[in-house]
Amino acid sequence: MSWLHARYRVRSRAADIESVARALALEQSVELPLEAVRNAYIRDHIAGQVERITPAGADHFDVAVRLATVTTGIDVAQTINMLFGNSSLHDHVELVDVDFPAEFGRCFPGPRLGITGLRRLLDAPRRPMTCAALKPQGLSAEELAKICRTFALGGVDVVKDDHGLADQTYAPFAARVHACQRAIEAANRETGRRAVYAPSLVGAPKTLREQARIVRSEGVGMVLTAPALVGMPAFAELVADAIAVPVLAHPAYAGATRVAPPFLLGKLFRLLGADASIFPHHGGRFAYGTQLCTDTAAACRSPLLGMPASLPVPAGGISVERVPEIVRFYGPDVMLLIGGSLLLAGDALFDRTREFVARVEHSCAAEFALRPQPTAH
Amino acid sequence: MSWLHARYRVRSRAADIESVARALALEQSVELPLEAVRNAYIRDHIAGQVERITPAGADHFDVAVRLATVTTGIDVAQTINMLFGNSSLHDHVELVDVDFPAEFGRCFPGPRLGITGLRRLLDAPRRPMTCAALKPQGLSAEELAKICRTFALGGVDVVKDDHGLADQTYAPFAARVHACQRAIEAANRETGRRAVYAPSLVGAPKTLREQARIVRSEGVGMVLTAPALVGMPAFAELVADAIAVPVLAHPAYAGATRVAPPFLLGKLFRLLGADASIFPHHGGRFAYGTQLCTDTAAACRSPLLGMPASLPVPAGGISVERVPEIVRFYGPDVMLLIGGSLLLAGDALFDRTREFVARVEHSCAAEFALRPQPTAH
Repeated sequence: MSWLHARYRVRSRAADIESVARALALEQSVELPLEAVRNAYIRDHIAGQVERITPAGADHFDVAVRLATVTTGIDVAQTINMLFGNSSLHDHVELVDVDFPAEFGRCFPGPRLGITGLRRLLDAPRRPMTCAALKPQGLSAEELAKICRTFALGGVDVVKDDHGLADQTYAPFAARVHACQRAIEAANRETGRRAVYAPSLVGAPKTLREQARIVRSEGVGMVLTAPALVGMPAFAELVADAIAVPVLAHPAYAGATRVAPPFLLGKLFRLLGADASIFPHHGGRFAYGTQLCTDTAAACRSPLLGMPASLPVPAGGISVERVPEIVRFYGPDVMLLIGGSLLLAGDALFDRTREFVARVEHSCAAEFALRPQPTAH
Repeated sequence: MSWLHARYRVRSRAADIESVARALALEQSVELPLEAVRNAYIRDHIAGQVERITPAGADHFDVAVRLATVTTGIDVAQTINMLFGNSSLHDHVELVDVDFPAEFGRCFPGPRLGITGLRRLLDAPRRPMTCAALKPQGLSAEELAKICRTFALGGVDVVKDDHGLADQTYAPFAARVHACQRAIEAANRETGRRAVYAPSLVGAPKTLREQARIVRSEGVGMVLTAPALVGMPAFAELVADAIAVPVLAHPAYAGATRVAPPFLLGKLFRLLGADASIFPHHGGRFAYGTQLCTDTAAACRSPLLGMPASLPVPAGGISVERVPEIVRFYGPDVMLLIGGSLLLAGDALFDRTREFVARVEHSCAAEFALRPQPTAH
């Protein structure tokens, strides 16, 4: 027998936790009271079973449940269903983590490049990498391409679309990708660096396929997409079938306070094929504590079924000034994503970008005793 | 200019709410501080704007924000992105409701049948309709078909797969759909009624297409699927392209405590094409209050861009004994879904099912002065 081992944080009075935990295990499997399951095989091999209950603070418990692998059909949508389909509607239950069985490693893609491949792609063998975002939406493709060029000339490794850029009239997807990709190629010729542009893919499955086709034909080096927004099953299929470049996962709509961010944004998005995963860094615009950031980064990088590690991308309102602190926090296996703080510089955008890049290189040298790499421009 | 009018419930100190609300409007549009937006057109026509702030209890406010329709590209994924992409990560923000512009009525499918069409399909001109669920998973296709036959002979209108039934080895999708559809057709020949079987569609986009093909070739009368699980964009595309029968939406993975259930399960799933929507009824296994149930049903049935009303399907641990109360609560435009409470009857399943159906018909007669319809069997 093969099982998924799921861990839930459950709010309950101590007197009730045994029955609450049992109800959770049944909700996520047979969805029936056990006395209504008359088949012994189903009771023993299909029904979820509580493995362990551990106190976790006042009126909270960690509940470990094993769920039969066979119930998932090893399908993305059905796996999420078995893990948190109905219980997502229970205010007192949070899905915290899952240990997947070995079959999942054979059937799910995992990151294609991961940290090692991204370092090679970006010619950044040891240092933290940098990322900036094209915005605000409302600008034309040409205006965005101009910002893209500036970021690349400034030495940023990855220039990504704001996740709000889709296929809007003011900067249609095809025109924007063409303009920005040409801009980054021209900048790379000037700098001798290998910056990549990562357009945002968003839409229904057919739209995503068409956007992937454009990405291939334009020679784009990376893509950004939000698995919770396009749907995790569609995300996984897209990555497997239509994307040959690295994939940057965006947390939009992940509602991550209901599913633990380290699991959802770290482990699960990685399992489905994210080469890098964006998440809020503490002290920015989102109320993520330092422990949550540590754990999310760890979920990106810890051993997982022999898959490559994915790259943690802390973001969400961090400023250039905080670069040293953030590099110290995550170590070199990280990509720093700074958006608004750079664009606040207005006409000084190039200089501010350079400063960002220089600070990362300097922090890296200071913290990890590496030589700073010369920045061409 | 065309706008979406979104309403958020925000937890904040009174002294901070103005700036918190402004930050929310920017987060869901340009994702930049306004002082970084140098283009006047973008400031006036693309950036989200706070329309109204209303106190809503201690440290809570209702914040009305208008978002430019043009930012959505009138695409499902991008619309969700603009409504709650990043703010879903904010613990202090809940998306409560949205008024969509008229363009959405032209571009999104809405229910194909809705209440009126379902009543005609099920030959139930005025009474509440009934629904039962095939479970537990682990049973074979033949065993499930036998339960299906029993439900149909008992007079249930819709026999749906448990949403946990996918394409598992013990009851593969194709074999299960074939067996259950034949069972319901045979039962209908015996009873003279028009019960329908609604198999559960779950998987990545390609899997959903194949399941839809099987549904068509078997002559199935209805389908069940969970938009939050398969992804709302994939759900909408499937409904538009590949499904010709009514669609029953399941709330699995909707994490509905973070997005207000009346909006998500009621209005939004309906906008995307659900003919009926399942949600937890109060007093069952889920902590939904009566107001939430009233509001969710209202969202299914209130005027929406000229679209047909969708059918509220309260569920989640309700018993046969509660039928009169539930009918009184929702009125006749409802479908009652009872699962485990019927199957607890074991060998008395047929009788218990009949009792369920009879109670609904009797309640209806008592409450709404309709003639009970004779139940053939």
